[in-house]
Amino acid sequence: MPTTLADFQRVEEYLHAHQQDFIEKLKTFLRIESVSADSKFIPEVKRAAEFVEQELASAGLETTIYETAGHPIVYGSWLKAEGAPTVMVYGHYDVQPADPYHLWKTPPFEPDIRDGHIYARGATDDKGQMLTHVNSAASWLKVVGELPVNVKFVIEGEEEVGSDNLEKFLNEHQEMLKSDIAVVSDTSQFAPGVPAITYGLRGITACEIKLTGPAQDLHSGLFGGSVANPVNVLAKLIASLHDADGHVQIPGFYEDVLPLSEEERTQLGDLPFDEAALFDALGVSAGYGESGFSTLERRWARPTCDVNGIWGGYQGEGPKTIIPSEAGAKISFRLVPNQNAEKINASLKTFLQNQCPPGIKFSYQQFHGCGGLVFDPNSGWMKSASAAIEHAFGVAPVFIREGGSIPVVSTFKEVLGIDTLLLGWGQTTDNLHSPNERFSLEGYRQGTLASARLWHELASL
Amino acid sequence: MPTTLADFQRVEEYLHAHQQDFIEKLKTFLRIESVSADSKFIPEVKRAAEFVEQELASAGLETTIYETAGHPIVYGSWLKAEGAPTVMVYGHYDVQPADPYHLWKTPPFEPDIRDGHIYARGATDDKGQMLTHVNSAASWLKVVGELPVNVKFVIEGEEEVGSDNLEKFLNEHQEMLKSDIAVVSDTSQFAPGVPAITYGLRGITACEIKLTGPAQDLHSGLFGGSVANPVNVLAKLIASLHDADGHVQIPGFYEDVLPLSEEERTQLGDLPFDEAALFDALGVSAGYGESGFSTLERRWARPTCDVNGIWGGYQGEGPKTIIPSEAGAKISFRLVPNQNAEKINASLKTFLQNQCPPGIKFSYQQFHGCGGLVFDPNSGWMKSASAAIEHAFGVAPVFIREGGSIPVVSTFKEVLGIDTLLLGWGQTTDNLHSPNERFSLEGYRQGTLASARLWHELASL
Repeated sequence: MPTTLADFQRVEEYLHAHQQDFIEKLKTFLRIESVSADSKFIPEVKRAAEFVEQELASAGLETTIYETAGHPIVYGSWLKAEGAPTVMVYGHYDVQPADPYHLWKTPPFEPDIRDGHIYARGATDDKGQMLTHVNSAASWLKVVGELPVNVKFVIEGEEEVGSDNLEKFLNEHQEMLKSDIAVVSDTSQFAPGVPAITYGLRGITACEIKLTGPAQDLHSGLFGGSVANPVNVLAKLIASLHDADGHVQIPGFYEDVLPLSEEERTQLGDLPFDEAALFDALGVSAGYGESGFSTLERRWARPTCDVNGIWGGYQGEGPKTIIPSEAGAKISFRLVPNQNAEKINASLKTFLQNQCPPGIKFSYQQFHGCGGLVFDPNSGWMKSASAAIEHAFGVAPVFIREGGSIPVVSTFKEVLGIDTLLLGWGQTTDNLHSPNERFSLEGYRQGTLASARLWHELASL
Repeated sequence: MPTTLADFQRVEEYLHAHQQDFIEKLKTFLRIESVSADSKFIPEVKRAAEFVEQELASAGLETTIYETAGHPIVYGSWLKAEGAPTVMVYGHYDVQPADPYHLWKTPPFEPDIRDGHIYARGATDDKGQMLTHVNSAASWLKVVGELPVNVKFVIEGEEEVGSDNLEKFLNEHQEMLKSDIAVVSDTSQFAPGVPAITYGLRGITACEIKLTGPAQDLHSGLFGGSVANPVNVLAKLIASLHDADGHVQIPGFYEDVLPLSEEERTQLGDLPFDEAALFDALGVSAGYGESGFSTLERRWARPTCDVNGIWGGYQGEGPKTIIPSEAGAKISFRLVPNQNAEKINASLKTFLQNQCPPGIKFSYQQFHGCGGLVFDPNSGWMKSASAAIEHAFGVAPVFIREGGSIPVVSTFKEVLGIDTLLLGWGQTTDNLHSPNERFSLEGYRQGTLASARLWHELASL
């Protein structure tokens, strides 16, 4: 029989009484160094998958760990809500590399609670946010013995490296994964006290380029002037990516970009956005970006290009007068709906290679990519999520877009044909991908409550 | 009483008989990790100074180790050749950093003899070449009991980091150091079998720039487009240093450059230079440099600009989608006679700083600098050196210029008013400043013999 509002209220009381238990559970999860980008952490990534599986199992879900060519995918389902919608909850247990370690106030894998936040790599991206849904499902089953909706948890371990094996998994298990809607908490609130539902995401594509000149480092005096210097050439290639106005110069880069509607520009302009406060928080005296667009437009609705890392030659103390043998850089692009990652990579590779002078070998490695997308902010799903958030946060959420990428959201659309509710409990200032990543305990509490309420709201759809 | 040709011939026999001892001595010297650029090697640098002092003392010179604000200077003199010229022998016991270590076939500080060469950091630059003069003086004193000329050895430990404290030393000891000519073996032969006297050197100036953007690494999705990326900006700065033809773009950079005479261009063009063989040895498919000049002109007689190292953001395995907080680069310039390092640094700093966008902090640290210079290839000193080399190598030397810098040579001119004989026993292909640095045993033997003969030749001036 269907669950009731009274059932939810008993769950709400239970959540209130057990908040400390949920914090301890998160701490245990955060101590696992599940860095997916670096192969030396493989055993830790495996431990993180097992942790998630055990949590889902002890909550009362049927669970399986699916091995992949990379890191495993944890699946857990509870399907006894006859006639009710089926919700797929997606999250990831892997985290970004923690370097540079020396910039962390407390060690990245030793969770520390201070000023109302829990600090650790993965606190908000995505261990803490993902656990809110595990907690809420566990609480419903513990208190009520059932869930208002059917749930299918898909928790992967390769989100930070492009979810290379998730698409294959989704394709191979389409029947098992059949759902009505997906729920993902891997985004942020708009600001403290301003919860948000994200209806648009940017896509991403990334690559690594390497330039090789002389067979080994050369004395810059004996040979300076006779051969091309890979670092100088690399700088020239990177500089050529933007013009003086911050526009990307790769041929065809903006070709498929859909213009922002005046209506949306107005709506974005109306958000309570404190630009000065943002730049202050980031520690910059001023912002910078593509001319002709506001900061929010640049972050959410315009494609961008950033070098994520660069190296070459001598990086030690003091001078060393050499011509380096090699130089390299990691470059990533944030894409907007309708841009094509493959097309951009092909154009980029040619654009860069054609600029290399004689005596320089050029190599190009493409990392993961996905397109950006936008959902209808007025759907019934969105209304249910809005109501759940309003109950938990005491205020209705704003509807925003987000500059980050969640590649699987487009895969869900393509492979399973379902939309995704992007419900963020963290803040953009929580140092995602940075030293001193954190998640507010209040966001963790409210997120768990909103999740519990969401199951109730969705049941009536 | 003056020494005779017969005396020299006895010394020559002694050298022939004791070559193996000289090799063992060099090996001992090369095992000392005297890297001056990196403070963690300070004790090793001190050991190298002590080694040199002991060699000079046991040869029969009066020695002193002079402490400086940096690494010590070893002084040794023998001044009993009444009426004969006084020769200052300069060399350095410090070496370049050995990284990247993994590219060495045998460890950089464990000398290995193979295919007629001794392989180790400092083998040719400058431990091996400098020892030839210590060996020859020691042999004269051992065999003949005196030297044909007065000698003053000045062996420093900061050549690879700009000889910051040598100038002060020279100024403070002008009377003690008073000499007629300086001899330095820190250059190269023109090619195997083609010994050379170097009559021109390029100068150098070097700097490190650092760009700081956000207070810490940022998520490139959440913030990409809103702040300037220090790596992208750094690349733009470096790219601006050259135009499409390889000309340096810093305002005033070429202002003081003296044009090459047609006569010298012809003479350089007549040298037996195998360009294809050079590029093959360097492992490049083709050369690259300032348009309008030959490869030798670019290396010896034209100023150049090279980035020696660059860093910023994530350099590990796989992707990491961040906007780095910091980026930096080491840049060095080779200068030609009449260019002014201070003037160029001032112009460079302004040139780069003015290109930084809002939100980027720019810092500039100038390393050492010195001007380039050219000596008269027809002086009596040059003729004596030529005769000595012809005796030892069996062929007269060619007169060349060199792209490297020996800052102290200009200091000798300014402070002591003396010219320098630049007599190189190594090869440009000996991997100076690179992994697998080496020195041919034959060059070591011939250099020692030429040095012994040089004292004889100079005595008659």
